[in-house]
Amino acid sequence: MLKPENIKQAMEYRELIDVLMADDRFADVVLYNGNVINVITREVYTADIAIKGDYIALVGDCQSLIGPDTVVVDVRGKYLSPGFMDSHMHFESSMLTITEFSRLSIPSGTTTLMADPHEIGNALGPVAMKAMADECNVVPNFVRLQVPALTPDAPSLETAGVDVNSKDMEDLLNYPNIYGIGELQGFSLTKHVYRNTPEIITDLLASTTYAKSLGKPVDGNAPELFGADLAAHIICCGGTCSDHETTTKEECVEKLRQGVYVFMREGSTQRNMSECIRAVTEEGLDSRRLVLVSDDMVAEDLEKHGHMNDIVRRTIREGVDPIEAIQMVTINPATYWGLNDRGALLPGRVADIAVISDLKEMTVEAVFIKGQLVASQGKLLIDLPKYTYPDVVKNSVRRNPITEADLEIHADGNTATARYIQAIPDQNLTETGEAQVRVNRGIVEADVNQDVIYLACLERYGRNGNIGKCMVKGIGLKQGAFAQSIAHDTHNITVTGTNLRDMVAAVNRVIEMGGGVAVANNGRVLDELALPVGGLITDELTGQEVSAKIASLESTVRDQLGGTLHAPFMHVSFLALSTSPKWKITDKGLVDVNNFEILDPIVK
Amino acid sequence: MLKPENIKQAMEYRELIDVLMADDRFADVVLYNGNVINVITREVYTADIAIKGDYIALVGDCQSLIGPDTVVVDVRGKYLSPGFMDSHMHFESSMLTITEFSRLSIPSGTTTLMADPHEIGNALGPVAMKAMADECNVVPNFVRLQVPALTPDAPSLETAGVDVNSKDMEDLLNYPNIYGIGELQGFSLTKHVYRNTPEIITDLLASTTYAKSLGKPVDGNAPELFGADLAAHIICCGGTCSDHETTTKEECVEKLRQGVYVFMREGSTQRNMSECIRAVTEEGLDSRRLVLVSDDMVAEDLEKHGHMNDIVRRTIREGVDPIEAIQMVTINPATYWGLNDRGALLPGRVADIAVISDLKEMTVEAVFIKGQLVASQGKLLIDLPKYTYPDVVKNSVRRNPITEADLEIHADGNTATARYIQAIPDQNLTETGEAQVRVNRGIVEADVNQDVIYLACLERYGRNGNIGKCMVKGIGLKQGAFAQSIAHDTHNITVTGTNLRDMVAAVNRVIEMGGGVAVANNGRVLDELALPVGGLITDELTGQEVSAKIASLESTVRDQLGGTLHAPFMHVSFLALSTSPKWKITDKGLVDVNNFEILDPIVK
Repeated sequence: MLKPENIKQAMEYRELIDVLMADDRFADVVLYNGNVINVITREVYTADIAIKGDYIALVGDCQSLIGPDTVVVDVRGKYLSPGFMDSHMHFESSMLTITEFSRLSIPSGTTTLMADPHEIGNALGPVAMKAMADECNVVPNFVRLQVPALTPDAPSLETAGVDVNSKDMEDLLNYPNIYGIGELQGFSLTKHVYRNTPEIITDLLASTTYAKSLGKPVDGNAPELFGADLAAHIICCGGTCSDHETTTKEECVEKLRQGVYVFMREGSTQRNMSECIRAVTEEGLDSRRLVLVSDDMVAEDLEKHGHMNDIVRRTIREGVDPIEAIQMVTINPATYWGLNDRGALLPGRVADIAVISDLKEMTVEAVFIKGQLVASQGKLLIDLPKYTYPDVVKNSVRRNPITEADLEIHADGNTATARYIQAIPDQNLTETGEAQVRVNRGIVEADVNQDVIYLACLERYGRNGNIGKCMVKGIGLKQGAFAQSIAHDTHNITVTGTNLRDMVAAVNRVIEMGGGVAVANNGRVLDELALPVGGLITDELTGQEVSAKIASLESTVRDQLGGTLHAPFMHVSFLALSTSPKWKITDKGLVDVNNFEILDPIVK
Repeated sequence: MLKPENIKQAMEYRELIDVLMADDRFADVVLYNGNVINVITREVYTADIAIKGDYIALVGDCQSLIGPDTVVVDVRGKYLSPGFMDSHMHFESSMLTITEFSRLSIPSGTTTLMADPHEIGNALGPVAMKAMADECNVVPNFVRLQVPALTPDAPSLETAGVDVNSKDMEDLLNYPNIYGIGELQGFSLTKHVYRNTPEIITDLLASTTYAKSLGKPVDGNAPELFGADLAAHIICCGGTCSDHETTTKEECVEKLRQGVYVFMREGSTQRNMSECIRAVTEEGLDSRRLVLVSDDMVAEDLEKHGHMNDIVRRTIREGVDPIEAIQMVTINPATYWGLNDRGALLPGRVADIAVISDLKEMTVEAVFIKGQLVASQGKLLIDLPKYTYPDVVKNSVRRNPITEADLEIHADGNTATARYIQAIPDQNLTETGEAQVRVNRGIVEADVNQDVIYLACLERYGRNGNIGKCMVKGIGLKQGAFAQSIAHDTHNITVTGTNLRDMVAAVNRVIEMGGGVAVANNGRVLDELALPVGGLITDELTGQEVSAKIASLESTVRDQLGGTLHAPFMHVSFLALSTSPKWKITDKGLVDVNNFEILDPIVK
């Protein structure tokens, strides 16, 4: 039986046919005399676009569709592009609600967001993913969620707030606005999962096969996989997948050859496009399966640089033809997603249009969504009320205040060899190392001279109270500490610092706020940001306010504590990502990702 | 809930992962050291292909997947291509069952057939389309049917055996092996349908919207449509469609620009590829939406020249890169159909593989289907039992024998101006003309000197007994007549001849056989072919036998009657196609296609 939305569309399509065929029916809007970007044929030519209701009626000579009430917009000299799609992103990384993210991203031409809520899904499970799916109903842009097939990603290595399995998935995949399965991290380390937790595979295949039977995509997550390992990952995804963890040209070539849609990531911290794109600019491969995504984007970057338009601009600068680059945020992703109603300026497609004044600079002058002018000159023109989340996704931190003893790392003697995680600027991946550290009364001391300081991850859902601890290098702190209820992907509490007292102060403030970020020095909290929704998102502040607050927190870390890392909060949160090599910290301890085991922070 | 086929696939996928990951599990078959054609990246490189069960496990270095029981096939120097897809074809045109068509087409590398059974659908309705869908279960290749959204195509201009509407469609679209809606001829003449039978549009949109809501494609049918007419057609198809009626470069460019998948037709009688392909070879357009199809193919051509491999060969000769041409029968159609399990040689895809010894000549040396070697050196290696149809689709001709009086065209005086249809060699389209003809006792006479002879179309389903009559030019008969229970798309009885006596003899023999083809001269039947299934297909003869029989019938028409037309039976059957310009014959009379009206065969 037809669903209500199908009937609505059929009725609107009937109206489109009337506009095209009847002598007395006309378009609502005609964009007149533009340079239309055709992402199917890879051409630009002069044409008009006629719009009726939500849809494009005609691209071509639309003179005869202009009636007395038609709004005619002269777009001579402007380029008309399909609205841009971000095919892999996490609202949680921006700390914003869908509404606030949309407020910042729509004016830059982004009209479709395919979002993976696995951060809040790990924290609070299906109830939170459904709450986020509900918010998709109130925004003007097209937002759909991809839910995780398995939570946590690596059950033997970490504790999430809720365990989500294939039975929950069947329910979630049929929930409105949920479209497909998000990044399949549970099988990123194919060889290790196969050897160590093979029972996961059956559960994953049940979910991915079910999603595919509904015609829904499954996003892969295949960093550094080649050959048989990559093939096994693709098959576990149900036979087709994307991957947004590709960092070298060779990896990109391999993945394209194995049929993977390579989602070239260009977010606030991880940028892989300039390497990946060499598969096209140097090797000349067919680019139909290359897609640009942001993955993790902070509010400040959205405000200052734009969103997908900025990523396209950077891609053009790598030597890619502008239309080919625009294909990577329009028709290529629309094809991947099977979204036949968008991604190209064609009759019957949703009238989501970016009006561009400078193609190489990707200057977006105006944006139409469903035929309505929603943004102009970088400003949103429509009313977008603040969205408040239900209480069920708030107060997600269930842990009593901690003491310094909870964070101590113990060793015998006066010195010890400590294993440390080496943070790499602008990468999820880490290096590893060992350092000689002093031991005072059995407690390992941080050494700011060597830049070897403390790192911990505290389970925060009241399930086991685990605390994983190790040393870290590359954060640069000279004093103080910062903590946050953000720790990819389980989102326990991560904290790093030069001393236990400040770490305790920061962690206890995060617990007290019911989630958020806190910076401490000399035993007191210097600055903070509450993240009431799942400990990850604020529904109290706008994007601009979050952006200002993060800037203030970051400058506190940089100026007062001596931190050297770009985007230190986001960076440290990824030091907990147990599916991305080489060493990470989880509530269960120091994880050797490649060998799928927990290491002692001290070499014995 | 997962369907049994999903569970089967998940279990087989689990086995693939075992083969890839475990040290003691191996591939069933490894094609070793081939030149793999990668239709994603548009490359050819040396690699192996490992197969387990129905699926490809790995493309690359498969040495470690070779175990003691693995069958290793050395394919050094050979090209490995995904099996070919024919994305638009009618089994009825070959007069063969799916089984017999497959017997002829599999050895040439075709492993997927997307078939539109609208011929038998017009004749016998849902029961016959379901009977054909059932046959898909017994063949080794992948065959799916696209059913018509509306039968007949043009209700006001012709009578079909059964009227199929949007209510029947909902049932059909959920029947096993039925996948999408076939060519939407009911809205080929957008302007005329809109003006004359606008009520059809609502019914069409109900069907196409429903198909799209199931994720199923809708094939368009848009000959000579441009601009607003084409846009209306696309929208009536549910917003996306294909079209296999494109005959010029300009039309091809226009359709690609409007997002249509252009199915370039290269069948036994209509050949449009060499014109359409100029959109690529001359205009340089992105070819991702170009697809090669056969539409109507006779058994003899399959036997002598091959199938999709022959069409690819011809496309290469037009200057297209061989891999780009192969994309047009593999990944491009698989993308159109949303068939993510085929169309490329990738892990997790069905192991349908064509082994090619000469890429430019497209010489197919061996064919694998679901990992099994099914054909070699042009010969089928597997047992394929003859398929017999149920009685419910037989004896479809319900009409009493006719007399000469039934076929007379009347006019006053001694001469008259007769309108004639001008057949154009190798085209569905016709030209039109008027000729002075003699009138004897009120009956218009044929004139073999002018090549102006009789043409008629007789309703054969016992619904109204209609007989449409007019004159025709271009058939070339000097004597005799031939009749057939084939008349696109209603499949009433068409008959053409130089005299009424032979026409009656031929028609009555077709009626007596319960459907088929008959050639008559001097009052007696010279040769005949019974088509018991819907009056269109034989389930008694093999492809070779049909091929020989048609050759014999054609040589009778050519040698004994003087016929000059290539493939005269197929050609005359298309003179009834009321959706393709300019004039056609149906049971309701001489149809002026462009003006949507019935003309008097005599100018008054």
